[in-house]
Amino acid sequence: LALEEAGAEYVDVARLPKSRGGGIPAMMNFIEGKGPGFRPFSPPFLRVGELVVSHVASILEFLGPRHKLVPSDESSQIAARAVQLTISDLVTEVHETHHPVAMSLYYEDQKREARKRTRFFVADRIPKYLAYFERLLERPRVKKEAAYLLGAERSYVDLSLFQVVAGLRYAFPKAMAKSEPKVPRVVSLAERIAARPRIAAYLESPRRIPFNEDCIFRRYPELER
Amino acid sequence: LALEEAGAEYVDVARLPKSRGGGIPAMMNFIEGKGPGFRPFSPPFLRVGELVVSHVASILEFLGPRHKLVPSDESSQIAARAVQLTISDLVTEVHETHHPVAMSLYYEDQKREARKRTRFFVADRIPKYLAYFERLLERPRVKKEAAYLLGAERSYVDLSLFQVVAGLRYAFPKAMAKSEPKVPRVVSLAERIAARPRIAAYLESPRRIPFNEDCIFRRYPELER
Repeated sequence: LALEEAGAEYVDVARLPKSRGGGIPAMMNFIEGKGPGFRPFSPPFLRVGELVVSHVASILEFLGPRHKLVPSDESSQIAARAVQLTISDLVTEVHETHHPVAMSLYYEDQKREARKRTRFFVADRIPKYLAYFERLLERPRVKKEAAYLLGAERSYVDLSLFQVVAGLRYAFPKAMAKSEPKVPRVVSLAERIAARPRIAAYLESPRRIPFNEDCIFRRYPELER
Repeated sequence: LALEEAGAEYVDVARLPKSRGGGIPAMMNFIEGKGPGFRPFSPPFLRVGELVVSHVASILEFLGPRHKLVPSDESSQIAARAVQLTISDLVTEVHETHHPVAMSLYYEDQKREARKRTRFFVADRIPKYLAYFERLLERPRVKKEAAYLLGAERSYVDLSLFQVVAGLRYAFPKAMAKSEPKVPRVVSLAERIAARPRIAAYLESPRRIPFNEDCIFRRYPELER
């Protein structure tokens, strides 16, 4: 989303055919320490020349100032980091809803635990996180329809919050139907981000991978009852 | 650890008596948006004047260059961020071993699931993370006894790795007894950090809170069998 919003040129190497030097093997080279630059523990990571930047929050912090996706003052950049790391924590918790025992096990082998974990996640955690973002958007002298997480201008954390709202809607439609009326600013923000010309074009393009049951946000109706 | 290693002046506000303006209520003021600066989602956070920096990785990134706890070039600082975020991921997984269902439940009410999760954590995850750090310490032309995670000089991520090794030894003594012989560089690093004068003094002081069963690294012998 950040690269798309910035109109930056990039290659999604893991989705490139192997015949063109892409795919999982190309990615694994870096994980196995055969690439240039720093060896990351796991995907995702961004390669820029000799630099390898791993972790979504770090990638966004790297791209932010380079592509005017964050204000230039230090205090805004620290705030952006805090919001992004909070979003990362939320995304980790989403992953835990379908993998509460072990990533190395299939979902089917931890369904019982997943049901328990999801019950608490939708009851406690979704409302808590959304309420936090809503409060960040409650800014004096800024209209509901104009508020962004760091102030009056969009930054990379707004793109991330849009993505999280889209993912939560896909994975937990009932919980979100209940929560959204309580967080009108979050809902408005997600709408405004989706409507930005470059984001809208990306969402319509084949570059946008539809939500599915192999990624982090998964729709397992049996978990959300 | 970073503040101690730097010899910086700081106040651990949450441990200060309420009569001196400390304790949990002082901390909650920030979480409730009554403090100056950015409103954090949860502790820990650092306050420096009007700045509030939340999340361990962000706090360390903030302190690093100010206290010479990280090399000054961008590529080292990006590598430090990657290692620290990997350590944060590991620490999150440690927390999940005793709280795999919900943070809002007591450990006693999720013991069964904790046992299952811990089994996979000690079998798969501890070795995987430690092997990763060991490989980062395998540097050409640097002796085992002189290697630090970012090169030939200690940085804040070395302090963090020391803390994680100490915590894992406390919480999972059997798994660590089995894993440590395979990661001699990690073990050597942890020893060298513990022996640094300021760190050694801190570890002997009342400022060092002993590991216990209320924090992240907990020793529940029933989980590690």
